[in-house]
Amino acid sequence: MRKVIYGGACSLDGFLTDRDGGIDWLHFSKDVEQIMAQSWKNADTILFGRKTWEVAVAHGGGSMPGVKGYLFSRTITKAPPGVELVSHDAGTLVRTLKSEPGKDIIVMSGGNLATALLQAGVIDEIGFNVHPVLLGAGTPAFRDPGQRVNLELLESRALDGGCVLVSYRVK
Amino acid sequence: MRKVIYGGACSLDGFLTDRDGGIDWLHFSKDVEQIMAQSWKNADTILFGRKTWEVAVAHGGGSMPGVKGYLFSRTITKAPPGVELVSHDAGTLVRTLKSEPGKDIIVMSGGNLATALLQAGVIDEIGFNVHPVLLGAGTPAFRDPGQRVNLELLESRALDGGCVLVSYRVK
Repeated sequence: MRKVIYGGACSLDGFLTDRDGGIDWLHFSKDVEQIMAQSWKNADTILFGRKTWEVAVAHGGGSMPGVKGYLFSRTITKAPPGVELVSHDAGTLVRTLKSEPGKDIIVMSGGNLATALLQAGVIDEIGFNVHPVLLGAGTPAFRDPGQRVNLELLESRALDGGCVLVSYRVK
Repeated sequence: MRKVIYGGACSLDGFLTDRDGGIDWLHFSKDVEQIMAQSWKNADTILFGRKTWEVAVAHGGGSMPGVKGYLFSRTITKAPPGVELVSHDAGTLVRTLKSEPGKDIIVMSGGNLATALLQAGVIDEIGFNVHPVLLGAGTPAFRDPGQRVNLELLESRALDGGCVLVSYRVK
């Protein structure tokens, strides 16, 4: 079955952006390039949280050729080009997607969508590139799913620039 | 000069306890035993935040033979046995301690004291044993120091039980 993977880059104190939404602390390297290339090779679907979508579009990203995009939002009423709009019950849609043939599904979210999907029990793996910085405030990688989520470590290794890759299977 | 080290065990989402103060998710192992033995071999002073002190005492810990203890609290008025009470300006005291001869100084705190010491610029190293669990809520390992704190990765390695040790030098 297709895997649903939530991941990204975060600070040691668990933020995806700094307090002003900034990501100038992100360190790109050959390591990151290889990890991202491998992730996208195995994936054909991307689930965007609304705020993450807006950031992606602002940075010239968003939809990608060959990748089906879903945008989860309760406030947007018309789907932007390149993505399908989903306005309710993320868990049900993701369960349906998982039952269909296809490659991995990547969640790009600032914690809200990922937390809803964790609560729905549809996330299979979590992977983060932990950067050597404390940001103090910003968009959290994890919000409170209301219950304990047990994980199994799949991999941990140091990357270029003092980053540490950790990846887990959700139990 | 003596190093001031802030560390402990936390969940992937950065909590030192669960929402009820519970630490039943902590995984002890030979790896942890060796790391703690090494830490204590190099240290002779421990700085307690008040809440952490109370938890330590409740679990039969607190003061240790051969280790000088300082308890930081603005609410306690009389020092409990075995520790010296510090009621103001943690940074100044720690700077004084660092200028004196001695071994490493370990900070045991639920984020409040550690954050004050980060703000004061007196923490030299941060080390955490990241456990494979999302707790969702609890005592945070890091609070907002109000500014970015850059770190340098010293070590990262997988430990028994799916834990990952990460240690950093504060830049």
